[in-house]
Amino acid sequence: MADDKKLVKEITSMDEDFAQWYTDIVKKAELCDYASVKGCMVIKPAGYALWEAIQKDLDARFKATGVQNCYMPVFIPESLLQKEKDHVEGFAPEVAWVTHGGLEPLQERLCVRPTSETLFCDYYAKNVHSYRDLPQLLNQWCSVVRWEKTTRPFLRSREFLWQEGHTVHATAEEAQERTEMMLNVYADFCEEDLAIPVIRGQKTDKEKFAGAIATYTIESLMHDGKALQSGTSHNFGDGFARAFGMQFADKDNTLKYMHQTSWGMTTRMIGAIIMVHGDDSGLKLPPRIAPTQVIVIPVQMNKEGVLEKAAELRDILAAAGVRVKLDDSDRRPGFKFADCEMRGIPLRVEIGPKDIEAGQCVLVRRDTREKITCAIADLAATVPALLETIQKDMYEAAKAHRDAHTYEAHNMDEFTETVKTKPGFIKAMWCGDQACEDKIKELTTATSRCMPFHQEKIGETCVCCGKPAKKMVYWGIAY
Amino acid sequence: MADDKKLVKEITSMDEDFAQWYTDIVKKAELCDYASVKGCMVIKPAGYALWEAIQKDLDARFKATGVQNCYMPVFIPESLLQKEKDHVEGFAPEVAWVTHGGLEPLQERLCVRPTSETLFCDYYAKNVHSYRDLPQLLNQWCSVVRWEKTTRPFLRSREFLWQEGHTVHATAEEAQERTEMMLNVYADFCEEDLAIPVIRGQKTDKEKFAGAIATYTIESLMHDGKALQSGTSHNFGDGFARAFGMQFADKDNTLKYMHQTSWGMTTRMIGAIIMVHGDDSGLKLPPRIAPTQVIVIPVQMNKEGVLEKAAELRDILAAAGVRVKLDDSDRRPGFKFADCEMRGIPLRVEIGPKDIEAGQCVLVRRDTREKITCAIADLAATVPALLETIQKDMYEAAKAHRDAHTYEAHNMDEFTETVKTKPGFIKAMWCGDQACEDKIKELTTATSRCMPFHQEKIGETCVCCGKPAKKMVYWGIAY
Repeated sequence: MADDKKLVKEITSMDEDFAQWYTDIVKKAELCDYASVKGCMVIKPAGYALWEAIQKDLDARFKATGVQNCYMPVFIPESLLQKEKDHVEGFAPEVAWVTHGGLEPLQERLCVRPTSETLFCDYYAKNVHSYRDLPQLLNQWCSVVRWEKTTRPFLRSREFLWQEGHTVHATAEEAQERTEMMLNVYADFCEEDLAIPVIRGQKTDKEKFAGAIATYTIESLMHDGKALQSGTSHNFGDGFARAFGMQFADKDNTLKYMHQTSWGMTTRMIGAIIMVHGDDSGLKLPPRIAPTQVIVIPVQMNKEGVLEKAAELRDILAAAGVRVKLDDSDRRPGFKFADCEMRGIPLRVEIGPKDIEAGQCVLVRRDTREKITCAIADLAATVPALLETIQKDMYEAAKAHRDAHTYEAHNMDEFTETVKTKPGFIKAMWCGDQACEDKIKELTTATSRCMPFHQEKIGETCVCCGKPAKKMVYWGIAY
Repeated sequence: MADDKKLVKEITSMDEDFAQWYTDIVKKAELCDYASVKGCMVIKPAGYALWEAIQKDLDARFKATGVQNCYMPVFIPESLLQKEKDHVEGFAPEVAWVTHGGLEPLQERLCVRPTSETLFCDYYAKNVHSYRDLPQLLNQWCSVVRWEKTTRPFLRSREFLWQEGHTVHATAEEAQERTEMMLNVYADFCEEDLAIPVIRGQKTDKEKFAGAIATYTIESLMHDGKALQSGTSHNFGDGFARAFGMQFADKDNTLKYMHQTSWGMTTRMIGAIIMVHGDDSGLKLPPRIAPTQVIVIPVQMNKEGVLEKAAELRDILAAAGVRVKLDDSDRRPGFKFADCEMRGIPLRVEIGPKDIEAGQCVLVRRDTREKITCAIADLAATVPALLETIQKDMYEAAKAHRDAHTYEAHNMDEFTETVKTKPGFIKAMWCGDQACEDKIKELTTATSRCMPFHQEKIGETCVCCGKPAKKMVYWGIAY
């Protein structure tokens, strides 16, 4: 048992030190590693397989709404970045600058894209001429660079992977509709595929994206009670269009400015999966996104017929459309059990000589550890249904945790006390004044996460200044 | 007919000016566009859809051999790039250098990866300890940057997309086996999916990759008789391993150096598809890689029932697993015919009132322009089979073209005359001396493309110096 104990012992308990627990899982489940470049990460095969699963599901959702993929250059000339004033102010302090190409200094510095609004604007200005060319619904999957000072694997790194969608429309209404549509795509993806419940809402002006007229967000709650901004969708109005001269001839033969959106989701969602679902035994992957959904582990593998039967079970499950692997390595079953729990595989199938005799096997759920005896004849029907049940139960468990860690505050004493003693979301009324947001942050370190679409009036007055309240806001300490 | 004529008129004939023909197709089929950064490209949706199709097919072939995907940082510290002498000499003159992060100058310059051998070496040195950890079979899909002086869309640009596989092995034999295996994966992919015949062989020392002990290549012939290096696979021996301290404890408990390979294929394959298959009407896509395989075009669309029947045909084909679209735009059929030819869609289905009356439709092959009348009842069976026929015929046509443009030269007069008058591959014997390679290049501008695995002895002496020959070599003018 030495190996098994060692495997588990190396994970810090989440109650003892959540940050260290997170780092331990990232390392032990072999999701990513620090790179030789400070603040950058190497995404290892297990982590990248998760990203591939996210890409596949999300990309299909995008394409179902008419979005097409494309690819823009990794570099942005400094002059292009500077065309929109708010945007350059937001990003210039955190970009990496290329100054030399080969042995020659460049005539103009190029930044490594921190986001590609300016490139898409330049493209649309040149390629869209008529209302017939609209809407344009483009997306790209790529990496971006932001020179962050403090970094954490998946959550904040100098380079990360994401998708960025950029659309242009003939009317303000269409742009607004697309902005909300994509936010809902993200929210549905999180809830249905990642089993992560989210709050859908709008960012305050203080928290919105550089250059946007409105930023929408989905916010999720991690196991330690901190919030994670999980996807954003921006309506730019015609601000960039005016800065970049993005005009089109409308049906009435007049030149009009385009209306624009952008929206993005990143590899930080891998961090969200870890922190929403994981426990002290390791990762817990929702079945729909798990690269391996089921692992078959033979017990007393050296006994005649065990390995063959285990392979048969794998084949039965693969034929039923399950992503399944057989662990036929020469390690002991105890090690394999702990290992597949660490890696978060949703379901394991144990099969030994006695099971074979009884024509059955044992299913062990990763989420609840429940053991279920299953006739081999029923396996192909039972497992896919059970995976759906696990998916649903993981969502419900995450939602119950979030709801249990969502509090109300009606005055600043309650607010401060809640931040101190009860990590989670705080719902509180707000007057709409940025001074109150600033003050709340100063007093409590909590920030406004969003003004939820689903508004509940939990009071009449601003939690901070006592003036008439305009919005109910979710607040929290964020990653 | 004004529109149709205009569409075709805008393409230069390939016989008149092949380079301009290529540029016209790239532009008119909306594959890519120049970007605001000199030498970089915007890959437009039609071009990117081709890349997605290439990725999907190639990635499945990699995974079938046990390869896993991962992601390494976009930056390489200068000190890391410099660890292997030949490698840095090969790449340092053409990399882009990042010197500032945010507002601060960096302590050490970072290059934007031109290729990632050094990062994978650093990773393997840290992560592989025992023979049990071997082999490691990793790949990444990403963009790389090389500061080229002259650029052409897809063929040579300062940034391009590719995959780079990097493996390490316990023995030299395994590394050699993997190097050749991946070359064959590329060759099979080109021949089976892209319908592009290739010559498989080894590069001469002069043409091999910086730091490799052996480079293998597949070489294809474009319509203008120029060669295109279409994929390479390198065996590094233990050269990088020694430079990076990549050691592992072998079964006999001694420390040994790892043996390493790398292999890559790029977006230049989109250029190859254009230049192998295209004609004066535009692109011709092989059905297996075509994002849209069939387009249904209604004729006399305003007549009652035509559009409905066209949609029905689309649904029949989609249900048969065909990637199909219906062009129900308000343009005239003549425009649509020219447009789908330009975009290279392998098969179009025309349906009008008379066809409906007769219970049939007309299939028009893009590759041969053959018109085939097909009973609507047979459509679901006929079209998938016809697409396979088109795929095969396109391969055969490309192979016939290549074979007809492959010549032999037995002395330098023949060689020079062939280069001047008959664009294509030249087979000629070679003594193995680089001085002869240099001289041939100086006299004819042709370079050695590869020493094919399939050696034919077409003479006894070197085409250049007349000394005893060691190898038969393919020569050509290359992109």
